[in-house]
Amino acid sequence: MLQKHMVYPQSLSQLITALKKLPGVGKKSAERFAFKMISWSEKDLKDFVHSIENVQQKLHTCGECGALIEASLCPFCNPQKRDTGTMCIVSSSKDIFALEEVRLFNGIYHVLGTLLSPLDHKFEESIHVDLLLKRIETLKVKEVILALDSTLEGDATALFIKSALKNHEVRVSRLALGLPLGSTLDFVDEGTLSRAFSGRSTF
Amino acid sequence: MLQKHMVYPQSLSQLITALKKLPGVGKKSAERFAFKMISWSEKDLKDFVHSIENVQQKLHTCGECGALIEASLCPFCNPQKRDTGTMCIVSSSKDIFALEEVRLFNGIYHVLGTLLSPLDHKFEESIHVDLLLKRIETLKVKEVILALDSTLEGDATALFIKSALKNHEVRVSRLALGLPLGSTLDFVDEGTLSRAFSGRSTF
Repeated sequence: MLQKHMVYPQSLSQLITALKKLPGVGKKSAERFAFKMISWSEKDLKDFVHSIENVQQKLHTCGECGALIEASLCPFCNPQKRDTGTMCIVSSSKDIFALEEVRLFNGIYHVLGTLLSPLDHKFEESIHVDLLLKRIETLKVKEVILALDSTLEGDATALFIKSALKNHEVRVSRLALGLPLGSTLDFVDEGTLSRAFSGRSTF
Repeated sequence: MLQKHMVYPQSLSQLITALKKLPGVGKKSAERFAFKMISWSEKDLKDFVHSIENVQQKLHTCGECGALIEASLCPFCNPQKRDTGTMCIVSSSKDIFALEEVRLFNGIYHVLGTLLSPLDHKFEESIHVDLLLKRIETLKVKEVILALDSTLEGDATALFIKSALKNHEVRVSRLALGLPLGSTLDFVDEGTLSRAFSGRSTF
């Protein structure tokens, strides 16, 4: 019988375990990543580590809107540059960057941090709707845009916020539902098609 | 017109750029990785960085066979534990771990570092066949197993090494070509099927 065989050296298997924590990365991908990283020059590896440490040191969350920022003053909350009368509500700070890339919105943001999802133990108190209402009152927001996912959780959260706002004089709107750009009718699911049909606009 | 909009904060976009260096990771994946890493606790992020630095400090290549090792003495080159009369030739140190997992081989290894690939400027001198021949002579190797990819580059490299060994009294074998386990005939390509047919064994 052969003697007990070796697996990866400890430091290598620890790196593979660490890389598996990245979303969607399993054993095989983590191994590929680790072996690629081993082949990098010492400088490349140092730069990589530095970029992780840099994010940890410099990046923080705006105490007001919840955006990820580097500056001490949040550029999204600056009343000289942004229209504080319109507020866009998103579930995660990542969504802000997606919306900023579209370049259609110049108001302020509000990050909920999560969507209502009883299965994940995210109940109404996780949304901190009291903080949202306080901001809306303080800033005298006139329009609220709900930029939430078109999922069950997104729908539930949108309805919950709408009802919380019913005694406030704000216009509440939601992102349009319909065909994604470049799609063909036979590849679109029934739910999307029915929403696109009932939401049709004059042409 | 709206004013110029913000993109990611600098440290975040630097991390995304760094993550894009991993194999098969594009902009979208790198963004997902970066946002996941931001959500980690300070300790998790420190551990991640530490595991990268650890690999850089502890892992090195065996000067003899080319395996990735942590110990000062290579466990694969230890004549007390491994049969130095049989040598398995692989193209990369990663392949050693794949072969060790199969637990069929207890000889020594030799890492070529690359395969012959003129398109990638990998010519015969990249293989360092003189070092290989010197090891085979010194260790009095009796059998050489070519565990190389079943690709054009692997075939070329195998042929090249076989011809370099023609004046040496060593038995040269190559990994079998045939159907992968669990495959059905109609999903196997013609080349594999013809190799499996001509390499059929008595049953």
